[in-house]
Amino acid sequence: MRLVQFVRRGASGGVRVGVEQGAGGLGVVDLKAFDPSMPSTMRELLQLGDEGLDCARRALASGQCVVERSDLQLLSPVLAPEKVVCVGMNYRDHCLEQNAPIPKEPIIFSKFPSALTGPYDDIVLPAESQEVDWEVELAFVIGRGGKHIKEEDALAHVAGFTVANDVSARDWQMRRNGKQWLLGKTFDSFCPLGPALVTRDAVGDPHSLAVRCLVNGDTVQSSNTDQMIFQTEALVAWVSKFVTLTPGDVFLTGTPPGVGVFRKPPVFLKKGDVVECHIDQLGSIINKVV
Amino acid sequence: MRLVQFVRRGASGGVRVGVEQGAGGLGVVDLKAFDPSMPSTMRELLQLGDEGLDCARRALASGQCVVERSDLQLLSPVLAPEKVVCVGMNYRDHCLEQNAPIPKEPIIFSKFPSALTGPYDDIVLPAESQEVDWEVELAFVIGRGGKHIKEEDALAHVAGFTVANDVSARDWQMRRNGKQWLLGKTFDSFCPLGPALVTRDAVGDPHSLAVRCLVNGDTVQSSNTDQMIFQTEALVAWVSKFVTLTPGDVFLTGTPPGVGVFRKPPVFLKKGDVVECHIDQLGSIINKVV
Repeated sequence: MRLVQFVRRGASGGVRVGVEQGAGGLGVVDLKAFDPSMPSTMRELLQLGDEGLDCARRALASGQCVVERSDLQLLSPVLAPEKVVCVGMNYRDHCLEQNAPIPKEPIIFSKFPSALTGPYDDIVLPAESQEVDWEVELAFVIGRGGKHIKEEDALAHVAGFTVANDVSARDWQMRRNGKQWLLGKTFDSFCPLGPALVTRDAVGDPHSLAVRCLVNGDTVQSSNTDQMIFQTEALVAWVSKFVTLTPGDVFLTGTPPGVGVFRKPPVFLKKGDVVECHIDQLGSIINKVV
Repeated sequence: MRLVQFVRRGASGGVRVGVEQGAGGLGVVDLKAFDPSMPSTMRELLQLGDEGLDCARRALASGQCVVERSDLQLLSPVLAPEKVVCVGMNYRDHCLEQNAPIPKEPIIFSKFPSALTGPYDDIVLPAESQEVDWEVELAFVIGRGGKHIKEEDALAHVAGFTVANDVSARDWQMRRNGKQWLLGKTFDSFCPLGPALVTRDAVGDPHSLAVRCLVNGDTVQSSNTDQMIFQTEALVAWVSKFVTLTPGDVFLTGTPPGVGVFRKPPVFLKKGDVVECHIDQLGSIINKVV
């Protein structure tokens, strides 16, 4: 299934969870319209576990309660998670690009949830940075919480996968804030996510997916999730040694080579640019820089 | 006012917001019992703005709906905030202690909200660290959200002040995780907070308060918030340049000298230790290490 969050254009009523009838232009089944006992946010749906997903499957199969694409705006498939966990230096080819050693352990940092924005929303260039860069990343979302999760059990804790742009202000990430990456990574709008949370059963091998980023139609990143050093299972196990994971927690799994800062000369985003991040089987997020 | 969150011992019913009749052993007015239209969490209460605080004042004045201390367990005064914002190297005397230059800009890092624990709850030593350390800190909580808040307006966005222990695994903070501090700072239970959110009007000058940390009764940190390099107003203004602040966001404002890692030889917490963090006018949090 392809689960989304949306609002109806021009209507009040707030956030709804939906199920896409197919990727791209097809309609979206409004879960709460199908079953009023269902919650209206993805985080609450995930907290219901199998009960929620089973209902979503029935809603999709019903073919009822369909909202046309033109009548809705997609939001980030998860909002207000407890955690946005990010992984640095997690692609072999990205490490080679910057002459950095392959990490022996995952490097974990974070964004605040306030950075999340929708799959087609704008990336807002802050006046405080002159070096805003792109990073296409495979993201996954926790469905079942836990602590000290074993690698062999980890996938059962993952609800599904989606696409993220780990937008990064390199000046703040690399040279300021005592070299703590947080501020450069967490400006408002610096985490476009979506378009859909694609459930685990609907993705073949998440570690063998082509990953691409295009800026104004030119391919700037092109790799494959088979280049990831620490895969989904290892990341769930690692992070859950430190913290209790909870449904809705979002993980960004690192970016492949081709970011702007390591180009010669470096290239950064400017107003009017359009960034598309694409992962096979998951879809594209397309964000204009304003 | 001294606002708290609590659960009634041995009762179901979940989290409640309360108003202390006085610091220490006196009773706590149950806000929702006084007015069933009031929310049951601090974050929701703060979202109500003046309406919520006015109701809390009336509840306190009524002398009704009092729960005895022995019948309740205090929780962290805020749970599930969108952000736990932390400041590093923010005391002049702490910088001198480690021969570090006085920062020209605040150094901002974060904990996940899952690290929060109550004012008298246990600090759980993780098997993954051998170097767990204490840090008493003045904390404040955002009452009114905003972006690009000016310093001169900043205090109006602060609901009040409380006491935090920024528990830190130095091995993970200083030598691992690519020197990103997050993991070493965010183990579960690494952010005891409380005992109460003391509203702004009930604190004289928050930047002239004695700050102390005691381990097993011995004073290990003793300073004053007048040593802070970036005060509350500057921190609100700075962080809101990057992110939209929202009611309930917790700020930890940095620690004075006397932490274990810079002692000669270094000293770290061990099972059975009791850590008390005290700030004048705000109170003490007392946490056993298990």
